[in-house]
Amino acid sequence: MDITAVNALPYEDFVNIFGNVVEKCPIITAAVWSRRPFVSLNALEAAITEFIDNLPESGKEGILRCHPDLAGRDLQSGTLTRESREEQARAGMDTLSSGEASRMARLNEEYKTRFGFPFVICARMNDKANILRQLTERCGNERALERERGIEEVKKICRLRLQGLMLCDAPNKL
Amino acid sequence: MDITAVNALPYEDFVNIFGNVVEKCPIITAAVWSRRPFVSLNALEAAITEFIDNLPESGKEGILRCHPDLAGRDLQSGTLTRESREEQARAGMDTLSSGEASRMARLNEEYKTRFGFPFVICARMNDKANILRQLTERCGNERALERERGIEEVKKICRLRLQGLMLCDAPNKL
Repeated sequence: MDITAVNALPYEDFVNIFGNVVEKCPIITAAVWSRRPFVSLNALEAAITEFIDNLPESGKEGILRCHPDLAGRDLQSGTLTRESREEQARAGMDTLSSGEASRMARLNEEYKTRFGFPFVICARMNDKANILRQLTERCGNERALERERGIEEVKKICRLRLQGLMLCDAPNKL
Repeated sequence: MDITAVNALPYEDFVNIFGNVVEKCPIITAAVWSRRPFVSLNALEAAITEFIDNLPESGKEGILRCHPDLAGRDLQSGTLTRESREEQARAGMDTLSSGEASRMARLNEEYKTRFGFPFVICARMNDKANILRQLTERCGNERALERERGIEEVKKICRLRLQGLMLCDAPNKL
């Protein structure tokens, strides 16, 4: 799928295909449709980034709160979005030892209690050991720093999801 | 469920319960959790309204584009959200005659082609005849007016969904 095909999509198809590049936030994809035509995939990504950056801080926290915990109850109950399930599986979140799973659960709770939003990291760019190490470290940060850090991870996730859809998946979702 | 109970909810439960008061826009509910405690249901509603009003125009169009057509393909294929299904059924959208259904489909397409977002109306506050009449009339409006008009309807839908959840449903969703 090339950018010309993307630009020709009615909003319904555009949102069907790209609506989850930011987890559970189809409003963002639906909003940037107003900005078409895009000269490239990078331009589409830039429009999404700009929309996110222009949200108030509460809106950025809202984006983070739409994300599931890593190795959390959505993974266990099978209610993750397709994209999250694949990303968490690739990082080994579905095959943690019981010790690793308890540690992850405890740290996720500590993080959420401290910040009021979940720990978000681009699972595709990290392995299990790295995720546990970063979760431990980031629990010690300040709230404003973590909000920004989480949003940077949201953008990395978005970029990889966009690339994946452009390269192979998109026609199947129509 | 009273406002004290609402204010005590962790963000995950808050978003589970109230995440669809604006159709498919859990980010809005998730964002206003940052504004708790709320002194009343009206204060929660006001926080949602303020968040919507502060979005750029593209964001408001994004909200509208997250809404299904009335009597559209989501109703036919059973993929409406629970809230939309109940609201559309109450307005008789699931029992249109074939003539009414064709007319609705034609007008929905005309509206979407003209404005780039769907016709949104608070179905619970209108009957079938009124919806068809307003859809016909609103097809003739200017785009900026329709965007504002659609957002006003989104707020009415939100108010009724909030009231419904506070009055009876909320504990069942936990």
